[in-house]
Order: sequence, then structure tokens, then C-alpha cells
Amino acid sequence: MASSSTSSLSLTTPHLTSTSTTTTRLSPLPSTISLIRSPTPTCLSLSQSQTHLHRTAIRASAASTLATENPTAESSLVEKSVNTIRFLAVDSVEKANSGHPGLPMGCAPMGHVLYDEVMRYNPKNPFWFNRDRFVLSAGHGCMLQYALLHLAGYDSVKEEDLKEFRQWESRTPGHPENFETPGIEVTTGPLGQGIANAVGLALAEKHLAARFNKPDNEIIDHYTYCILGDGCQMEGIANEACSLAGHWGLGKLIAFYDDNHISIDGDTEIAFTESVDKRFEALGWHVIWVKNGNTGYDEIRAAIKEAKAVTDRPTLIKFTTTIGYGSPNKSNSYSVHGSALGAKEVDATRNNLGWPYEPFHVPEDVKKHWSRHIPKGAAVESEWNAKFAEYEKKYKEEAEVLKSIITGDLPAGWEKALPTYTPEIPADATRNLSQQNLNALAKVLPGLLGGSADLASSNMTLLKASGNFQSDSPAERNIRFGVREHGMGAICNGVALHSPGLIPYCATFFVFTDYMRGAIRLSALSEAGVIYVMTHDSIGLGEDGPTHQPIEHLASFRAMPNILMLRPADGNETAGAYRVAVLNRKRPSILALSRQKLPNLLGTSIEGVEKGGYIVSDNSTGNKPDLILIGTGSELEIAYKAGEDLRKEGKTVRVVSFVSWELFAEQSNAYKESVLPAAVTARVSIEAGTTFGWEKIVGSKGKAIGIDRFGASAPAGRIYKEFGITKEAVIAAAKELI
Amino acid sequence: MASSSTSSLSLTTPHLTSTSTTTTRLSPLPSTISLIRSPTPTCLSLSQSQTHLHRTAIRASAASTLATENPTAESSLVEKSVNTIRFLAVDSVEKANSGHPGLPMGCAPMGHVLYDEVMRYNPKNPFWFNRDRFVLSAGHGCMLQYALLHLAGYDSVKEEDLKEFRQWESRTPGHPENFETPGIEVTTGPLGQGIANAVGLALAEKHLAARFNKPDNEIIDHYTYCILGDGCQMEGIANEACSLAGHWGLGKLIAFYDDNHISIDGDTEIAFTESVDKRFEALGWHVIWVKNGNTGYDEIRAAIKEAKAVTDRPTLIKFTTTIGYGSPNKSNSYSVHGSALGAKEVDATRNNLGWPYEPFHVPEDVKKHWSRHIPKGAAVESEWNAKFAEYEKKYKEEAEVLKSIITGDLPAGWEKALPTYTPEIPADATRNLSQQNLNALAKVLPGLLGGSADLASSNMTLLKASGNFQSDSPAERNIRFGVREHGMGAICNGVALHSPGLIPYCATFFVFTDYMRGAIRLSALSEAGVIYVMTHDSIGLGEDGPTHQPIEHLASFRAMPNILMLRPADGNETAGAYRVAVLNRKRPSILALSRQKLPNLLGTSIEGVEKGGYIVSDNSTGNKPDLILIGTGSELEIAYKAGEDLRKEGKTVRVVSFVSWELFAEQSNAYKESVLPAAVTARVSIEAGTTFGWEKIVGSKGKAIGIDRFGASAPAGRIYKEFGITKEAVIAAAKELI
Repeated sequence: MASSSTSSLSLTTPHLTSTSTTTTRLSPLPSTISLIRSPTPTCLSLSQSQTHLHRTAIRASAASTLATENPTAESSLVEKSVNTIRFLAVDSVEKANSGHPGLPMGCAPMGHVLYDEVMRYNPKNPFWFNRDRFVLSAGHGCMLQYALLHLAGYDSVKEEDLKEFRQWESRTPGHPENFETPGIEVTTGPLGQGIANAVGLALAEKHLAARFNKPDNEIIDHYTYCILGDGCQMEGIANEACSLAGHWGLGKLIAFYDDNHISIDGDTEIAFTESVDKRFEALGWHVIWVKNGNTGYDEIRAAIKEAKAVTDRPTLIKFTTTIGYGSPNKSNSYSVHGSALGAKEVDATRNNLGWPYEPFHVPEDVKKHWSRHIPKGAAVESEWNAKFAEYEKKYKEEAEVLKSIITGDLPAGWEKALPTYTPEIPADATRNLSQQNLNALAKVLPGLLGGSADLASSNMTLLKASGNFQSDSPAERNIRFGVREHGMGAICNGVALHSPGLIPYCATFFVFTDYMRGAIRLSALSEAGVIYVMTHDSIGLGEDGPTHQPIEHLASFRAMPNILMLRPADGNETAGAYRVAVLNRKRPSILALSRQKLPNLLGTSIEGVEKGGYIVSDNSTGNKPDLILIGTGSELEIAYKAGEDLRKEGKTVRVVSFVSWELFAEQSNAYKESVLPAAVTARVSIEAGTTFGWEKIVGSKGKAIGIDRFGASAPAGRIYKEFGITKEAVIAAAKELI
Repeated sequence: MASSSTSSLSLTTPHLTSTSTTTTRLSPLPSTISLIRSPTPTCLSLSQSQTHLHRTAIRASAASTLATENPTAESSLVEKSVNTIRFLAVDSVEKANSGHPGLPMGCAPMGHVLYDEVMRYNPKNPFWFNRDRFVLSAGHGCMLQYALLHLAGYDSVKEEDLKEFRQWESRTPGHPENFETPGIEVTTGPLGQGIANAVGLALAEKHLAARFNKPDNEIIDHYTYCILGDGCQMEGIANEACSLAGHWGLGKLIAFYDDNHISIDGDTEIAFTESVDKRFEALGWHVIWVKNGNTGYDEIRAAIKEAKAVTDRPTLIKFTTTIGYGSPNKSNSYSVHGSALGAKEVDATRNNLGWPYEPFHVPEDVKKHWSRHIPKGAAVESEWNAKFAEYEKKYKEEAEVLKSIITGDLPAGWEKALPTYTPEIPADATRNLSQQNLNALAKVLPGLLGGSADLASSNMTLLKASGNFQSDSPAERNIRFGVREHGMGAICNGVALHSPGLIPYCATFFVFTDYMRGAIRLSALSEAGVIYVMTHDSIGLGEDGPTHQPIEHLASFRAMPNILMLRPADGNETAGAYRVAVLNRKRPSILALSRQKLPNLLGTSIEGVEKGGYIVSDNSTGNKPDLILIGTGSELEIAYKAGEDLRKEGKTVRVVSFVSWELFAEQSNAYKESVLPAAVTARVSIEAGTTFGWEKIVGSKGKAIGIDRFGASAPAGRIYKEFGITKEAVIAAAKELI
């Protein structure tokens, strides 16, 4: 009767493979007395016949055996450890009276096996380079991960941190945040992002391993694990990223699908009846089904072993689990998903799982069992350090480069590679100038890699010296994302957060930031220095029309915290934008670039861009121009020419490039006054986008020229003229002011 | 040899079914002399053995026959019609020197079969209610649809319109735009949107049919067809929507997958190697493979017939086609996707396909053949009108309701259903007040239907008098979208654009508008009056933390054209927001609603909301208050209380609710001056979001209190205090100004 949870029970690989294609879905079953061993819980609501069915299924899965890789703790201790995880989650949520106990209770078994038996990490150095990466894509279940980090000995999650779950300035916020809690790799919560981040982490590993590993020294060798639930599975971003993971053959990506059949609206039957198994097979994944995710520890172990043995494809392990496992009245229902159980149900759950301890208590034997991870972690890291020393001795150059990727230190003098421009150089589109920068930088920045969402030849993002990152050529640096903007952004977040020295860039038309805004916001929040190369940045793209013409997009990103919105006007400004983007490793940058050609203007500079706003031309003295004209990107030229005309009429005119509002805002008041003196209220701005927000720059007496409607399909010149984005309009507005 | 294009060639249903699961992919084959009949083109680059293989494959598909439903034109005329479509596209793109010829050339055969043989429509009344709907999800190929509308006799696309392709104010813009061109159902171009719109159109048909059809009178009965390409297939939104279509069993949705193996970056092998067939089977679709999409007219006909016969599931017909079919040097390559062929290649294509005509010429026999659609369309409509007259006679009440859905006329006095509130009514969250409005409106607005992305119990969107829209209960009005925000928005666009009287609403947390911004922008652009019910609209949601707390979102939508961003403060304002949202049928509305309770304030009103900004309380006279305090949503209460305190100190204080910037901007200057007199520069605004944009309202001498950083995980009250979103902060700021 108890045989289903002994360590001798496990599965053969072929058997698991054959079950993976089964589409019949077992109803999620609550825990039964027959499957939990010690301490003995009271029996839950299962009928005899259901119990019997469940046991039969388990036995069928266990028809043959496979020795487990590592001897593991006695099963009673495993169960005790798993219940410790459950109750740390239950108690923390209860104390906060806020949070999500359901997932940690259901996923504690897979979490235990991962952190206690499978993963390689060093709790005292969460940033050890060759650690296995873990992503909780179902981020609301963060108490699972906090409990695991706590047991494993991470300093970031002490008992007092658990007690401060979801409180002001605690290290245990309501969703996992990499910038708050060492041990958390990426920031999750918005569903689907985490699995896409995991694809990026696994891409980074595969890429770096291909570039740096040697036959005699596989210096880079780690796995990426991810837990995702039904919510993540429904999100389009997850399908995008997983399609790419299959295409790229990311064999060291192992995703755990928590198939508990419950989402917030109730049973997933209400809106989610597709066959996830079949879909993942279609995406080129290996699929395994662990039918008893609640107590089938050996099934879990065997599935992970099998997943590791499949090296040419990522693996999805589907776990049939019970949300809120152990809660007699709330398990297997929505009510356990996102609220504290309540004192009464906590007591009932303690009784049910036979848990006599005080809140937050970790039993001594569990503590002792987990305590080995501190010396073990130190040992794996020091072993790896020795390996790296050997590597360094034998492969000096490669080691040097790899070190820069590990530390994030930029090579001395890298910025000298940035091209500079003079007005004599013919006009060019800033998207083309961007490509010159990318190719120049690729030579000096070994961590620069990226690509476009199927618009490489429009976004101009190909690195000419590199091939395509593909399943069989993973050392290459051009990434082909297909038409998957949202997945692309989240994958780049994963790449950026894998190693400080990896600098991912990605590209599409600027208007399609709308498709990837969820990922861009997470770049900003999680301090992932992704470079967003966004071309076709205005009505200047012409005939494709309003669906393709950004209007509100510049404003929408200027309003977003911790991101740099850069709109360079010519060659020097494009180089300046890249300088800023490369230097800002904890703040993503968006470069809005033109489709159309723009002249190289006298007075633009890399240094100017770094100030955000600066004087490009001026014929005034004493910081008292009659007029200030302000432009960005393709409209700086218009402001510039309007200034020339107005000067001919005897006016003193200052022309200011306002390439990045965020950078300007960071300058000293004295600098700001030197560019936009408060006394000069005659100001005209011009930008081929919404005027929303420009009052701040031009003041209530100034005039903002822009576009407060959708665009139109026509040749670009015609649209500029019809919309009044012209030199004549600037001059007319100026004359009203002076 | 020529048998492959005679009308007797067709396929048995079982045969097609069995091929549908085959995953072997035929290389896209350029046209061969053996498959094109008349006029005889020159032979393309296929080797003999490839040609042989191709023919064998075709013959294999044609092993058995099936009588076609309707006798069709002679095959030579079909071919001529198809080539007419191809050359109208080629010539229009050539004249514009801009556009996408590749798709129309490859998809002309399926387009021809659809518009000439299958679809029911009335060219002289593009809005005839029971028409079949067609969506070109691969919107860049719009010349295909313009050519078809032209041939079919739509007044919106005359020859002169084709000659004005992609020009200023033409009716043939660069992507299909429903608001420009009658006959276009939805606006596409951003990939993946169209197929999701199509799911919405098919949902609307299924819903209305279930509600209104009678055993003796199936008054609603039409199909939704959609062409989508590899680009759409890669987008996550498409997977989201198609998963729902499978779940809902939308049997009258038939999607044509143009599998030409080419995307912008080259062969789809570069980034898209999943099995689309298997994925759609996993999503619950019926899948058919038309191996010869280039010339296999009978295969195409048989596939559509089979798709119609499958009534419990949507069908995906995968067409193997050649992009740019007929262009000897550019077909089957990226170069034909998005640029004009160039004069030389146009000539070569004319020669290759044996097309001796001038640009834009429609041969007389083709013209004559298509001319039958005008009388035929008039007949189908008048037949349906007669059917409706019968329906009206027999089912008076239902007919009345159905008519209001067809016309969009709101029932007289509907707005009386809106609840009103007084300060004595206990505080409540505006999300709860929203639910009161939705339920009140559902009783009087028969076209109101919608739901949430798996947050119904948080967004408070359930209609209590209705059940769930499901495969077997399609007459119900609660739609369960699952965690699929982007798909949800686009599906609602389809619903809104199906019938003027359908009023779809959809819901998620406000921050997750980031996931659906692509669809929301298309609501705005395509004039789809979707109501976005966006709850948890600030740091007021508390512990879930920064991933869930909107900051920049209000500003980002205030910057977007043609959308109403409404942030009501209490019960009356929530009712006012609904009044505005329901009345604005060509402009979508976003309602930002609180998770936390808010008091009903004295002075708020439905009428006030309609002005966008209005005075809630005031103790000044002569329009000269010492101070104006401005708040929105949950912060109006703070402004209100600060005003009370400041009045106690003898100040004259006006408190203004700024619930919708867009509506305020539309008021007369006199009204604006009556609320925000220019002479009063002492203004303080407070809003729990970015201050970006507020300078416009408070002026350069005023002060905007807001949040220009990401949020935090903690109880809401604590975050408000730490971030300084407090009455004390308002009072302190005010005192600095007066």
C-alpha cells in the first residue's frame, strides 16, 4: 500500500516516453492516506473507488524500475521536508494575510526534489556563474521559492524575512524580484514571462558553452529549470518562446508544468481544454507526464533523469498535482489559490498532514538534512573555480573574454569603436547608422548578441561577421526570433540576467513595442539592460499606414520608470545612443530609429546625447535667445533648418536636440538652465508623435508641434506636409511667440 | 497532364482527413507548365524529377473524386480570373512603387474560390447583416482583397481606387482598414490580430444564432473565413485566440493558412520549424492540407466543403503555396514579399503567365463572369430580408431585439438603468461598483456581453443573470477568456465590428493592458467600441507589488488617439463612465477601477463625468479660488479631504475631478475656463501614477503629486504613505503655492 512512495519506485525511460503522448487527463486527485506516509494525515474526501483508480494508475506507471541517480533522503524525511516547505508557505501567507498558498502546497514535492536533490548552486554565492538557473514562471507561488532558498541556506531569506513576507522593504515581496532577493534569477508574476526568460537563460548557456567549452574542459555546463502553471500555458508569449526553444533544441531547458487543473476562474475546463502535451510535441519538445506529482517522488526523479538524457530538445514534464495539497476543505479549488487559508483551515491542514509544529518551525532533522547544501555549494563552486584556473592556464584568450562576460566589465577603450560623423557624410537612415554601430560594437563587445522579430533586413540588425544562432550553430550571435515580439523581449531579459557581460539587443518596428510591452516593462523593473532597436519610428515610414506608424509610443515610454527612451537625429547621435545603451547595464534602452534618410547635422555629438538635451546650434549670447527650437530624431533637422531661416530674419535662435528626456532630467539645474533658461518662454518643439507631455518642456507659453491623431497611408513626404510637421509650421509657430 | 485543374478533380473527405496529420512538408514548388493550362506560361526552374514528384503528389491527392457542390466556371476562365487578381495586385504595387505583391500572387487561387464560388455577400451593401465575413489576417497582402472587392463589384474599390493604392486619402491604404473601405471587416496588418478578430466574428455569429435562430427560421447563419500566413502563426496572440476557438467549438470559422515557407527573414526554416498542423490539432481544430494551393482548385473546393461539414470544431486548411507565384525570378523568395517587382520582372511575369494585357486591365470574360455577383448579392440579401420579415411576424419580440443589435440603436431610456449613489451609501471599490453597472446594463442592453482573462472574481465582471458562453451554451453572455489578454482584446474587436449593437467588454488588471496593447490600439484605430474594464488600477492593490502596480499606464493611454481613458472616483462616476462608454460606439473606453474601497463623494455626478473634468466642491466666488486641487479616481477623495482642511484655514478651494482628459479637451473654452480659470495658477494635482503629462493641467507654476518610480510590495496604506500620496502632501504642496 505504501510502496508508491518508496525510493525503489521509479520508471523506465521508454515507459515514460510512451505515456507522454497520452492525452487523457486524470482528474486532479487530492491527497489520500494511501499515498502519504508519515506523519499520517487523516483521509481526505476521495471515494474508495477513486483511490483505487489512482493507485492503479500509479502502479501501472511503476511497472518497471530504474535505479535513481543519487541516493536520497529516507522517504519519511523527504515527506517531512516537503511539508516544511508547505507550512513555511502557509504560515507566511497567513501572517501577511495576503498571498498564494495553493501553488507552494501543490508544488512542494517538485520544489524539494529540485533544490534538495537535483540543482547545483552555492547558497553563499547566489551569483556563482555556473549555477543551475531556476525560474518560477508562476510567480505568485513565490513562497515556494522563498521556502526553498531559506532551507538551502541563502542569506537573503532568513526566518525573519519569511515573517516579513509582502511587507514594506522586505526581501520577500509578493512576487519574485531578482533585484530584491539574491537567489531569484528573474522577476516574474505577469504570467508567461518566466518561461520565456527561462528560454533566454537556456539560450545563453547553450551559446556560451558553444563558444567557450573545450573538449577537455566543459567550463560552462548548467541547466535551466522552470515551473509554470496553466496561466503561463495560456499566454501567447509562452507559446512564442517555447516554439523557439524547440526550434533551437535547447536540451538543457527542463520545464515543470504544474497541471493542477485549477485557474482563478475555476476548473480549467472553463477555458482551457487544449492538449498541452500535443502542443508541446508539435513545438518540438520532449514531453513526459508525471501522473502523481503530489507524492510520486521517484516518478519525479525519473522524469528529471529522462529529461536530462534528452539532449537535443527541451523537455516539458507535466505534473498532475493538487493545488493546495493538504488543505482538507480548500485543496483542489480556486479558494486556495490567492488568499490566506484562515486560522481554522490552517489548523485543519496541520491536523490533516500531521504537522504538530509552531508556525515557521523547521524540524531539526529537516534543518540538518538541508544544512549540507552550504558545504556542498562551496565545494561545487571551488571545484569549478579550479576548473576555471585550468581553463585559464590553457586557454588564456578565451578565459579573458569569458571573464568579461562573467563580470560585466567592458573592455578598456571599447567606446573608441563607435563611429563618428561629419555633415559631409551623406544622409542616411538612423536604422542604417544603427547597423554600423552594432557591427562596430560586435567587434569589441564579446557579449553583444541579438536580432530581430523577422525584420532583420528592415531593422538592419544583422552582425555581418557572425552567422545565425541555431540548434547546430549556437556559437553564432545573430538570433532569428521569428515574428514573436513578446517572446523576443522576454528571452532577451533572460539573456541579460544570465551574465552581467551579455548585452542582448532585439528589434522590430517601433509601433510593435505594443506587442512586447509586458516584457519591456520587466526589463525596466528587473534591471535587465536590453537594447531595443526600434526602427520605422514615425509617419516617416509612409505607405504602410496607421497600423504601422507610432504616435503615442515615445510618450508612453517616457512615462515608464527606469528605461531610457532615445531618439537620435543622425550619425553622431546614433553612436551616442549606443554609448548610453551599452553603459546602462541596469536600465534598458529603446532606440527609436528612422526608416528615412536624415542628414548629419553640424553640432550633434555623442557627448550631447549623454546629457539627454543639448544645444546643437545657437546665435544668441548671454543665454538669452529670442527663441528656442526643440526637436528630436528626424525632426531635429526641421528645427535646425527653421532656425537657419529665422536667423536670416535677424532673430537669435537656439536649436536644442532633446534625444532623451530621462537623461536631461538627471542633469544639474545649472546645466538645465544653460540649455532651457527659465526666462526664455518662446519655445517651439517639433516631433512626429503625440504632443502629450511636451508642455513640460515648452512651458505653458510655448508651442508643441506634433501629431495627436492616427497616421495615414501615403508617401512619407505627403503625410509630413498634410500633418503640418514642417519647417513652415515651426516658423509660423515661432512668429506667434516672438 | 492537364487533369489536375479540371473541375472533376477533387478529393474525398476521408482522404483529406488522413493527410491532415502528415507532418512531412513539401518544398514550396514554383509553378510548372504541367499545372498551368491557359495561357501557357514558360516553364520555370523546376527540374524534371521535381516536376515528376510534384505531379505524383498531386495525383496521389486526386486518387478519388467528389462532386463539387456548385458547378463552377470553366477552368480556363478560373485561371484567367486568378491571373487577373494577380496582375491587379502586381500593377497596383508597381504604380505605388510600394506594397506587397507576394501574398496576392500566391493566394489568388484561394481568394478566387472564396469570393467567386463560396462566400455569400452583397457588393452593393457591404453591411448586409448575414454576409459571410472575410478577414485577411496577413494584412500586408491587402491588394488581394482590394482586387477581389473590385471584381465582385464593391463601389469602394473602383479602378481609380486601385490606381491610388497607398496614396493620401485613397480607399486602398497600405493595410486593410475597415473605417476606410466598405467591404473590409476589420483592420489588420499587425500580425496575428486578424485571426483573433475572426475568432471574435465567429463567436458573435455563434452567439447570436443561438439566441435568435428558431427551428423554422435560422435567421443568422454565416461563415467567417480568414487567410493567415506564417507571420500570424508565429504570434502568440494567434495561439491564444485559436485555443479559445477550439475550446468554443466555433465550427463556422474556417482559416486558410498560407504556408508558403517564406517570411521576411527568408525560409521559415530559420525560425519556425514547429508542426503547425499538430499544434492546431492539439488546440481542438480540424486540420486539412491542400498540397497544391497554387493550382489545385478542386482540392481547394473540396477542402472548404469538408471544413463546412465539420460543424463542431473550427477548421484550419493549410495551403502549400508559392509566394509571388508566377514571377520567374522572385517567386519563392523574400524579395517578392514587400516590394514592387520592378518593371523588368513585371514584364517577365506577364510573359511567364501569358498575360498580354495592359496594367489594371480586367479581361471582358472575367468581368462578365464576376458581374453576376451584383444581382446574386441583391438576391441573397432580399431573400434574407423576406426571411427576416417572416421572422418578425412570428417572433416579434426577438425580432425587435435582433434589430437593435443589427442597427446599433440603443433602447430608449437605457441610461435610466444606471445606478446613482449618495454619500450615505457605504464606501465600495469601483470594481464592485462597476459590476453593479454591468449587471444593471445587461438587463437593458441586449448586446452587452463579455468577461475577463481568468480574473472574473477579481475584476468583478460576471453577469449574474447569465451563464457562461461555451461550446454547448453559446447563447450565454459571460465569456471566459482564460489567461489570454491579447487574444481577448482582439476577439472583442471582432465582436464589436460584427454588429453595431454588440457591446463587448473585457477585463484584466490594469497593468496587464501591457499584454494587450496591440489589440487596444486597434480598437481605437478601427473604431471598435470595446469597453475595457481594468481593475487594480494603482499601488492601491498593495501586496502583489510592482509587477502588478500600474504607474505609467494612465499616461500611456491618454497619449493614444481615439480612446477614452476614464478613472472614476466613486459610484456616480463609475455610472458616468459606463454611460460614456456605452454611448461611444466608435471609440473604445478604458475604465481604470480600484481594488480598494472608496467613499461616495458629495458633488460627483454622471453629468460631470461626461465633461471629463468638473468641479466637485468649491467655496470660492467669482471663479477666483485661491487654489485648485485636482484628483482622479481613488485620489479624488484625498484632494477632497485636503480641500476641506484648507478651507478650515480660511482658504477658498476648488476641488476638481479629472476623470477623463479626452472628454475635457473636447469641451468649449468657456467651460474649460469655468473649471480651470487661467488666472488661477495655484494648482495641485494628485494621482497614484506617473506625473508625466500633468504639467498641461497644473501649469508650470502648479505641482503634480504622483509616482515616478515603480511600486512596491506592501499593504496599500503603507505604500501610499511611503510614496507621499497623502492629504498631508497635498496640503504641504498647496501651502507652497499660496
